[in-house]
Amino acid sequence: MNDTTERDERHQARMVRKKAVMDARIAASADERGLLLVLTGNGKGKSSSGFGMLARALGHGMRCGVVQFIKGRNSTGEEAFFRRFPEEVSFHVMGEGFTWETQDRQRDIAAAESAWAVAKGLLADPAVDFVLLDELNIALKHGYLDVNTVVADLQARPPLQHAIVTGRTARPELLEAADTVSEIGVVKHAFQAGIKAQKGIEW
Amino acid sequence: MNDTTERDERHQARMVRKKAVMDARIAASADERGLLLVLTGNGKGKSSSGFGMLARALGHGMRCGVVQFIKGRNSTGEEAFFRRFPEEVSFHVMGEGFTWETQDRQRDIAAAESAWAVAKGLLADPAVDFVLLDELNIALKHGYLDVNTVVADLQARPPLQHAIVTGRTARPELLEAADTVSEIGVVKHAFQAGIKAQKGIEW
Repeated sequence: MNDTTERDERHQARMVRKKAVMDARIAASADERGLLLVLTGNGKGKSSSGFGMLARALGHGMRCGVVQFIKGRNSTGEEAFFRRFPEEVSFHVMGEGFTWETQDRQRDIAAAESAWAVAKGLLADPAVDFVLLDELNIALKHGYLDVNTVVADLQARPPLQHAIVTGRTARPELLEAADTVSEIGVVKHAFQAGIKAQKGIEW
Repeated sequence: MNDTTERDERHQARMVRKKAVMDARIAASADERGLLLVLTGNGKGKSSSGFGMLARALGHGMRCGVVQFIKGRNSTGEEAFFRRFPEEVSFHVMGEGFTWETQDRQRDIAAAESAWAVAKGLLADPAVDFVLLDELNIALKHGYLDVNTVVADLQARPPLQHAIVTGRTARPELLEAADTVSEIGVVKHAFQAGIKAQKGIEW
């Protein structure tokens, strides 16, 4: 028996064992339910992951809602793209700009409160299957919204509705309430090398 | 002067300074160029981030290509959704199943090589603005493809073309070549609590 055959057979034996473990875990899992996901950390990919899940949800025929709490630019690729499907996606850009652009805390608070009113409407609607709350963590971090109110509204949503929250520095109360939390770390970033934010990637 | 006004003024002064820093960094950045991004780590959000950037790219009118190196299910939300736009997205699902499903190393290698041939075609085409190589890292990790060949083909792509690579356990050679690398860590995952993979979220 040559080395290649031996390696292939070891591989097969290992994969048979792994399949048994994975099948058992899948069989033991519960049925359909709405998840609360939080994507946080300083790395690139939080909002884009939310928009990728939105695309998946649309692929399954789900009705979706999006609220962007921070409006970084006048127009973004995600807004241009998902506004193509007004019957399927209710898309709301609510923020007034990054906080270092507005420099006005009272205006930021008012914008965050308006955005939360829209979000709360989506979270209360059992016809909505998927809600993306993009950069909500930033509004919570700055204290523009009360975290306990936000968590209570998230927890009161319909049982099959998915909710996704993105943004740096997620509050511990939200992490505690979430089903799945990912922390996205920077290994390196093109911006550090003097490359500006590229369309199709960062916006 | 009351406490709220003081807090608001401190906030404004801080934000004025931050705006100056951010504006200078943006002005110092280079112009448009294609980026190589890698999304790795064990947490949830790598592939979905790639699909979110794909949506952004489509919003900017870019022509896009997708190669999925690992086919986990017969149909996914992302495939169903992005196949709606055949003029804009060239979508290829190449994998034969997770490696613990196939249990056949030679078949996995053949599938990975076929997938790379398709990827290479996209990476050589200056009319393609954005290429997503989903779960390529898995094929590299198992040694199904030669990492130096893959990196060389990535580096030879057109200068304005973006390329996104996803999957756990990215190879160091690929990280070295990348402009931006995010490592997605698990803080918690619904699967650990016995909840099965949910449509619209994981697939």
